[in-house]
Amino acid sequence: MGKLYVIGIGPGGLDHLTIKAKKAIEESDIIVGYTKYITMVEPLLEGKEIFKTGMKGEEERCRKAIELTKDNKTVSVISTGDAGIYGMAGLILQLENTADVEIIPGVTASSAAASVLGAPLMHDNCNISLSDLMTPYELIKKRVELAAEGDFVISLYNPKSMGRPHYLRECLELVKKHRDGKTPIGVVKNALRDGQEVRIFTLDNFDENVVDMFSIVIIGNSQSYAENNRIITPRGYKVR
Amino acid sequence: MGKLYVIGIGPGGLDHLTIKAKKAIEESDIIVGYTKYITMVEPLLEGKEIFKTGMKGEEERCRKAIELTKDNKTVSVISTGDAGIYGMAGLILQLENTADVEIIPGVTASSAAASVLGAPLMHDNCNISLSDLMTPYELIKKRVELAAEGDFVISLYNPKSMGRPHYLRECLELVKKHRDGKTPIGVVKNALRDGQEVRIFTLDNFDENVVDMFSIVIIGNSQSYAENNRIITPRGYKVR
Ligand SMILES: C[S@@+](CC[C@H](N)C(=O)[O-])C[C@H]1O[C@@H](n2cnc3c(N)ncnc32)[C@H](O)[C@@H]1O
Ligand SMILES: C[S@@+](CC[C@H](N)C(=O)[O-])C[C@H]1O[C@@H](n2cnc3c(N)ncnc32)[C@H](O)[C@@H]1O
Repeated sequence: MGKLYVIGIGPGGLDHLTIKAKKAIEESDIIVGYTKYITMVEPLLEGKEIFKTGMKGEEERCRKAIELTKDNKTVSVISTGDAGIYGMAGLILQLENTADVEIIPGVTASSAAASVLGAPLMHDNCNISLSDLMTPYELIKKRVELAAEGDFVISLYNPKSMGRPHYLRECLELVKKHRDGKTPIGVVKNALRDGQEVRIFTLDNFDENVVDMFSIVIIGNSQSYAENNRIITPRGYKVR
Repeated sequence: MGKLYVIGIGPGGLDHLTIKAKKAIEESDIIVGYTKYITMVEPLLEGKEIFKTGMKGEEERCRKAIELTKDNKTVSVISTGDAGIYGMAGLILQLENTADVEIIPGVTASSAAASVLGAPLMHDNCNISLSDLMTPYELIKKRVELAAEGDFVISLYNPKSMGRPHYLRECLELVKKHRDGKTPIGVVKNALRDGQEVRIFTLDNFDENVVDMFSIVIIGNSQSYAENNRIITPRGYKVR
């Protein structure tokens, strides 16, 4: 079997790939990925065989990548952000957990968006996906509420899709039960790639219409504040 | 004022820096950082002025970096992993929140360690630091327990230091209240840099002696399993 890389390409801009991710792509004979992600790394792909599929084709992509590797080719499956966070690493290893598979980490969307917003994460934080394709909605809501109760900074991945526009609103209502209405919320669309848009709200004045599936939503903790178009979570709790 | 970059250099190995982070370092006149992190990027620093301090010198480093920038120099403050997660981004912006400051994200320790372990994160997950320098221990314990209750995959940063060797044990006891004893736990010391060591345990057979301050501990969720020296959190909840 050839080598199979599962690569996190970072938020999308070519400068935010790791050097290792770039090398692995360059070394590959075949690149497998979702059409949109393939476009992001296009300049690196000259002369390579490409296998791309639409959004729902995840399992197909993974099976194909594994199959292609059997011909002794070097194959890279690419995810945006980090391949190990809502990416392809898990599915590949579920199907083919051998030493020929190497996972190459990348900058995940919450880190990318946080850098654009300033420093909202800084301390204990969690990543929650609002997509109910993988997790029942009841469990998603439970997690949002527990995270709010624990005063975690919360990054919401997949905050909105056509099928479930009200999830975001309902989840923010749950957060409000535990957090002040003045708590800052940042929305970053297309962080660190073409089309970047940044907006800062509070829980009280949040406008959900700006959020789409290319956005991530970061909710500050009880110490976070907004200043000069940035969100900052200070380093310590004053309690001590 | 000159430009001030706050850079996450990733887990430590030079290949896991982003291209942007590398460029920013190359472009800088002066590099500011904790001695150990400076050593990690040493090959990139030839001919540059270096300002390094020991572990407790965080505020001193940040103030110095800002001061140096006033001479119209380009200065980079470096953190390991992502500068926005338990790194320098927050403190810098608390002291100097101007347009001259740019945060450059990196691969955080939980992503780096996860890639080495296989695919333990995959779904909703949280980062919690066991250091009580910034957060009262009661709040840390509360967060660990809420995260366990919510079936989050949990990454424990700063899992052990001289002053608080029992925190890790106590926190794992809290997790056990909500999670099966067979739940896999991965410990990665020096992920993706010299001295990397990887160990996989369960909640029941965990050996806390292998954990030190250069390690991160990742606790699987109720679906995670260990196989061929890897931890995999499968993509979906079977519930649906
Ligand atoms: C299937 S998840 C993939 C996450 C990816 N593996 C990561 O680690 O960032 C897709 C979601 O990630 C978020 N996302 C990914 N890249 C982003 C970017 N550059 N800017 C904003 N959000 C992004 C959005 O919330 C999007 O709906
Ligand atoms: C002050 S925090 C810095 C975190 C860093 N900003 C990040 O995003 O990874 C230091 C802790 O991060 C974790 N850590 C950082 N780099 C690591 C690595 N390469 N391998 C394992 N753990 C690491 C350890 O738990 C360590 O005690």
